[in-house]
Amino acid sequence: MNPTNSSANSKIRVAIVGYGNLGKAAEHLLSKTTDMELVSIFTRRDPATLKTQSSVPVVHNDDMCEWTDKVDIAILCLGSATDLPDMGPKFAALFNTVDSFDTHAKAAEYAEKMNEAAAYGDTIAMTSIGWDPGLFSLMRLMIGSVLPTSKVYTFWGKGVSQGHSDAIRRIKGVKDARQYTVPVESALWKIREGETPDLTTREKHTRECYVVTEEGADQAAIEAEIKSMPNYFADYDTTVHFISQEELLRDHSKLPHGGSVIGVGETSEGTKQVVEFSLNLDSNPEFTASVLIAYARAAYRMWKNGETGYKNFSDVPPKFLSPLSNEEIIKGIL
Amino acid sequence: MNPTNSSANSKIRVAIVGYGNLGKAAEHLLSKTTDMELVSIFTRRDPATLKTQSSVPVVHNDDMCEWTDKVDIAILCLGSATDLPDMGPKFAALFNTVDSFDTHAKAAEYAEKMNEAAAYGDTIAMTSIGWDPGLFSLMRLMIGSVLPTSKVYTFWGKGVSQGHSDAIRRIKGVKDARQYTVPVESALWKIREGETPDLTTREKHTRECYVVTEEGADQAAIEAEIKSMPNYFADYDTTVHFISQEELLRDHSKLPHGGSVIGVGETSEGTKQVVEFSLNLDSNPEFTASVLIAYARAAYRMWKNGETGYKNFSDVPPKFLSPLSNEEIIKGIL
Repeated sequence: MNPTNSSANSKIRVAIVGYGNLGKAAEHLLSKTTDMELVSIFTRRDPATLKTQSSVPVVHNDDMCEWTDKVDIAILCLGSATDLPDMGPKFAALFNTVDSFDTHAKAAEYAEKMNEAAAYGDTIAMTSIGWDPGLFSLMRLMIGSVLPTSKVYTFWGKGVSQGHSDAIRRIKGVKDARQYTVPVESALWKIREGETPDLTTREKHTRECYVVTEEGADQAAIEAEIKSMPNYFADYDTTVHFISQEELLRDHSKLPHGGSVIGVGETSEGTKQVVEFSLNLDSNPEFTASVLIAYARAAYRMWKNGETGYKNFSDVPPKFLSPLSNEEIIKGIL
Repeated sequence: MNPTNSSANSKIRVAIVGYGNLGKAAEHLLSKTTDMELVSIFTRRDPATLKTQSSVPVVHNDDMCEWTDKVDIAILCLGSATDLPDMGPKFAALFNTVDSFDTHAKAAEYAEKMNEAAAYGDTIAMTSIGWDPGLFSLMRLMIGSVLPTSKVYTFWGKGVSQGHSDAIRRIKGVKDARQYTVPVESALWKIREGETPDLTTREKHTRECYVVTEEGADQAAIEAEIKSMPNYFADYDTTVHFISQEELLRDHSKLPHGGSVIGVGETSEGTKQVVEFSLNLDSNPEFTASVLIAYARAAYRMWKNGETGYKNFSDVPPKFLSPLSNEEIIKGIL
């Protein structure tokens, strides 16, 4: 890509790649973003089968090359397990991209791949954007920088974990399930008061499962299988509630989430400083899409300033996230 | 200043300007900062009269010119009312600087002056750094960028307001006083639950005053004078406690503070997203100094990268605040 090809003072032209929960949320939110406009939606499915909310062209991934001059930045609304590692570099070689890659163990490897692709395309590839990783990462870095000797905790929830819900659904006899990750309130409050306990996995979070079983299924066996599942549940205090499909749809169809990053540091003997950043989200995908859109704005503006290659949250001057001018920031925000 | 004159891979050489609460806190904290070292303390007083904790030279402001090659960045620990407007530009013309200028109404004017001085010196002048303005400004910008239609609230306290304490001390018959700004908890909790009320000044904060009077003073008259003082107390629910000097020293000699920035936004009809950043600080000056030190690191690194002129929180890529490498950020923080 080349900055001269791109729109000068007009709206930032955005493509969405992938049309699941996250892509749909981004589409909805872009319709309300005054300085950006959605120009196309990319999919690997047959474009004719997608029912979108907007009227922009739906384009098959195979035709992405035709859009390089018409898109300023692509928001990759794809999963981290296999989709981003596979498709991320392909898009990054042609477009500025921002994504929410969240497999911590593979972040360095993915960063390298995306950096190579972005070098090839003279683009920016900004990865691991969202609330965790993303805003929570920013807070972990900020607290560690301001209070170098602090202890920093991350708690998640109360919120739906898709991965844990999926794990329950794979059990024989289970029709549907929803799993909530719940922070242990007493641990949270201790830290807020300035204590710095060493906490085990069990002491930080509990897990609440709402499960719909098939007729005649052995619920006691299913409950035992959930509670003993390694990695997912065995290290946690887990409660299992069997409910009907109607109850699940009525009471558990939303995707709330949230959590807290809390740091406790001493600046002198006995002088405690407690910093907390917390989120209480009615919709995880809509908030993640909101963060992606702000960082898409930043990524494009950094690219216009001549920057290319792999980027993450730590590279972004906050002013680029905002449509406000420097003068407006000094007068209205400072 | 010129990057080639500065230390290459060694510690960042820091000067402290001004030796009040903030300067002393910065001195103490720099002694524990591994990648930075304090090299001098500047004062407008007679240097021989300063009792410092460290053994670095204490230098009179008049001799600052002799230090331009020995200092990478100066942390201006000076008041915003008259000291920074007067001395800030003089230092910025010779040194990279970071300060905690906090007079909102004059921030734009001060920015312009500091920008001119920094242009003259090819330096960076980073202003309004601390927790408010500073980290709270960052959160206001971040929330406004991610949730464009959100309502963002700032609450302060519970904490000591030096300005309000001073105002009480100026009343005839008052020997000493300490004023706490206290957020109205019920308002805070409403917003945390996703409500977006329009709040008056009185509905956001109350004021608690601890007052020591001279013998024979008319306490009823003093209480009435405090409560009716315009700007400072008249618009608030204010309580006044008369205590002894011993009690004041025993129970109210610390400078705790804190507060919260809370944003509530809807990403779709009825879908609330609540973001909160909060601080609970045992020592306001020690935390402010901690923030100044992290941003001093960032300012110097930005200057080494060729940037000059006025900067504020919104210009700073978070990675520059941290001594961690990019690899360490990806592996340990992301």
